Amino acid sequence: MNSISSVEIVEVSPRDGLQNESQYVSTMHKLTLIARAINAGSRRIEVASFVNPRAVPQMADAEKVCAGLPENDEMTYIGLVMNHRGAERALATGRINQLGVVAVATDTFAMANQGQTSNGSVEIAKEIISLAHSKGITAQATIAASFGCPFEGEVMQERVVEMVSAIFEAGPVEIALADTIGVGNPAHVASLINKIRDVLPSLPIRVHFHNTRGTGIANVWAAICAGAATVDASIGGLGGCPFASGAAGNVATEDVTYMLERAGIQTGLDIDKLLAANEWLASLMDKPLASMMAKAGSFPASKQDIKEYF
Amino acid sequence: MNSISSVEIVEVSPRDGLQNESQYVSTMHKLTLIARAINAGSRRIEVASFVNPRAVPQMADAEKVCAGLPENDEMTYIGLVMNHRGAERALATGRINQLGVVAVATDTFAMANQGQTSNGSVEIAKEIISLAHSKGITAQATIAASFGCPFEGEVMQERVVEMVSAIFEAGPVEIALADTIGVGNPAHVASLINKIRDVLPSLPIRVHFHNTRGTGIANVWAAICAGAATVDASIGGLGGCPFASGAAGNVATEDVTYMLERAGIQTGLDIDKLLAANEWLASLMDKPLASMMAKAGSFPASKQDIKEYF
Repeated sequence: MNSISSVEIVEVSPRDGLQNESQYVSTMHKLTLIARAINAGSRRIEVASFVNPRAVPQMADAEKVCAGLPENDEMTYIGLVMNHRGAERALATGRINQLGVVAVATDTFAMANQGQTSNGSVEIAKEIISLAHSKGITAQATIAASFGCPFEGEVMQERVVEMVSAIFEAGPVEIALADTIGVGNPAHVASLINKIRDVLPSLPIRVHFHNTRGTGIANVWAAICAGAATVDASIGGLGGCPFASGAAGNVATEDVTYMLERAGIQTGLDIDKLLAANEWLASLMDKPLASMMAKAGSFPASKQDIKEYF
Repeated sequence: MNSISSVEIVEVSPRDGLQNESQYVSTMHKLTLIARAINAGSRRIEVASFVNPRAVPQMADAEKVCAGLPENDEMTYIGLVMNHRGAERALATGRINQLGVVAVATDTFAMANQGQTSNGSVEIAKEIISLAHSKGITAQATIAASFGCPFEGEVMQERVVEMVSAIFEAGPVEIALADTIGVGNPAHVASLINKIRDVLPSLPIRVHFHNTRGTGIANVWAAICAGAATVDASIGGLGGCPFASGAAGNVATEDVTYMLERAGIQTGLDIDKLLAANEWLASLMDKPLASMMAKAGSFPASKQDIKEYF
């Protein structure tokens, strides 16, 4: 633990955060959200997914969002894709400089989510990573339902390790373990990461947690202690999965940032700017968001705040 | 980690859970809450605090609650006290078989909370532990504001270790580190526990976390990994601190239980009975409670639940 000085946070609010929101967010507001994330220090953002607009209406303006992305050489703009059609769309924008592909750990979820078998999703992920390389950009993969499936229940760790090993052959910059439905626990997280690092010590690992059952932040901590280099998070804790019951947001960027910065681990993010972004987003969505930091404020409090207690 | 097979959870909802609720909960309903916790498997419950009823009206019926406690030789019923007057009241009930005393890490908070200096609170804690022993019952102590103070900001770990070492001399069954205002982070938690175990390896450590800034469950995990034996938790995540801004409940018993049981660590608690107790308590308090498990439900889902996804 003592050697961990920094962790990278990928801002996923423009994609995973918004995709299940019934209220349509305009292209301009999506670009404002992205601009606020950049202003808060984010250098890697999942800006859109290139999927069928009939399946995910919120992402119908993916190309328009890409056209409006700030030109900034420091930025990695991730476009999420499920298949070749999506990959071609993302590449055609000329603004996406990293493809994110999704393979799913169980057949039932893979069919429901993207009309593929689990093995089929691994094969397509490898093909899309190769396609990205042929076009001169990087790619990474996410293993959805790595810690449990809403349809099939428990997911064997060996299956996830097998999928990671297969996708690794295609040369992704990293592979993510996603607790898509928020059922993971920190022992499981540490164990799975250890198993992957045993066989693929050079592979950078990203993690993607939902706080559905309250374990999201604990899972982030366990993942970092086990060696994960990168964490997905969403401003306000926005997000969900159409196949996961209950309130099921991503871990909130401001909550993850607070924990890490207070623990002496640098994120490059500015907590006050994140809290301001939360306030703006809550107003836009017209509802309070799940982030705890937005309710409680930072610590230590300013002298001004302290006086209010008396 | 591999050697941790079980963790004890102390149910604090009847005291810390309720004490800041403006809606008065009747003695009968407090006893129903206690009965539900026992039914869910709890064997150690903080049943009341013996403080000035004008300061904490919700605890005015402490003696009546004690008179109604189920007779059960397996149960440890904790009465929380701040001073000799409270200790005498708790002992006079004849039903409290463990005194809990509170020492506070900073002078400003100690004066605001219980009209003592920090050192004064340590001395009184030692005296009350001795008093409990002279009456043939056990006692334990909690160090409030161990991880930060709403008035003074940062709290030095050395100060907490010094207080723990002083109170240890009186022979408490354990000492708890309390993040009273919910500002702790898992690195701080692990570091402080390690420091205490270095000097007092035989002392059992309990932890008390509020989820004010989203780190509560992560702090529980870090504490257990560092060797804490016991965790305070409150059904529904009810609770707060009059000196902590924002929503500031205790970690929810059902969320802690879910994480631990899924991680293979036994708690002795039945998650379904806890969720039923949450439902009853939310109805009584006429508001949704903070527990995430209550919103999401357990995992793996039953076959019945799974069918609903299609």
